[in-house]
Amino acid sequence: MSQNADWQDRIRWDANGLVPTIAQEVGSNQILMVAWMNRESLARTVASGQAVYWSRSRNTLWHKGEESGHFQKVHQIRLDCDDDVLLLQVEQVGGLACHTGRHSCFFNELQVNDGAISWAEVEPVLKNPDDIYKK
Amino acid sequence: MSQNADWQDRIRWDANGLVPTIAQEVGSNQILMVAWMNRESLARTVASGQAVYWSRSRNTLWHKGEESGHFQKVHQIRLDCDDDVLLLQVEQVGGLACHTGRHSCFFNELQVNDGAISWAEVEPVLKNPDDIYKK
Repeated sequence: MSQNADWQDRIRWDANGLVPTIAQEVGSNQILMVAWMNRESLARTVASGQAVYWSRSRNTLWHKGEESGHFQKVHQIRLDCDDDVLLLQVEQVGGLACHTGRHSCFFNELQVNDGAISWAEVEPVLKNPDDIYKK
Repeated sequence: MSQNADWQDRIRWDANGLVPTIAQEVGSNQILMVAWMNRESLARTVASGQAVYWSRSRNTLWHKGEESGHFQKVHQIRLDCDDDVLLLQVEQVGGLACHTGRHSCFFNELQVNDGAISWAEVEPVLKNPDDIYKK
């Protein structure tokens, strides 16, 4: 599959050639995580049917689940109205999207109590990360 | 409300002082849109209970719905595991989040037919944009 296909030119890649990508769980519609894609990762995602991102911290392709086994099976890919955000509808293998061992990465909730504002962790750790990443 | 509150320092603002923000519909869990926030827009969102973004194109605060009446009532604010994406759970007044007159901005679906890949608009326009934005 060409990395310069017309359908990819539609996307407004940022100055680094990346686009933010939301992974949403099929069925529950819960948001699992947000990561980044470049042209090659998107092409590999479409070709393989599994989510392949671009790791900005490691500066490399990141086949989600390559170490943990927690792959994401892609059911649908959508693009927003101004062509700069991708949305993947995925089935999360193992039920854990977050490296902390949680279902979703969005586990910090803003709470306001008597005017005091703080972040609280409101989702349980389902599996010890040490047990997820064993090479 | 201080714009430099501790709870805001937790967020990893990008080089432009912005953070991508997902608006997700309470109940259906559908993703309505993705926009950006800076410190002031987030502070105003928390204080008012309505979504206030930062418009990168107009370089100004953007109280969603200020022209259309399609405000977003914020039920919950979440932050992801690496502190660089916000998630708002909102009630979308008027049912239309997208400037195209659609419920959601994510109406373009990637379709593969006999090896040909293209984007298709798969969500209906519910209201003519000309009828939404009349000052």
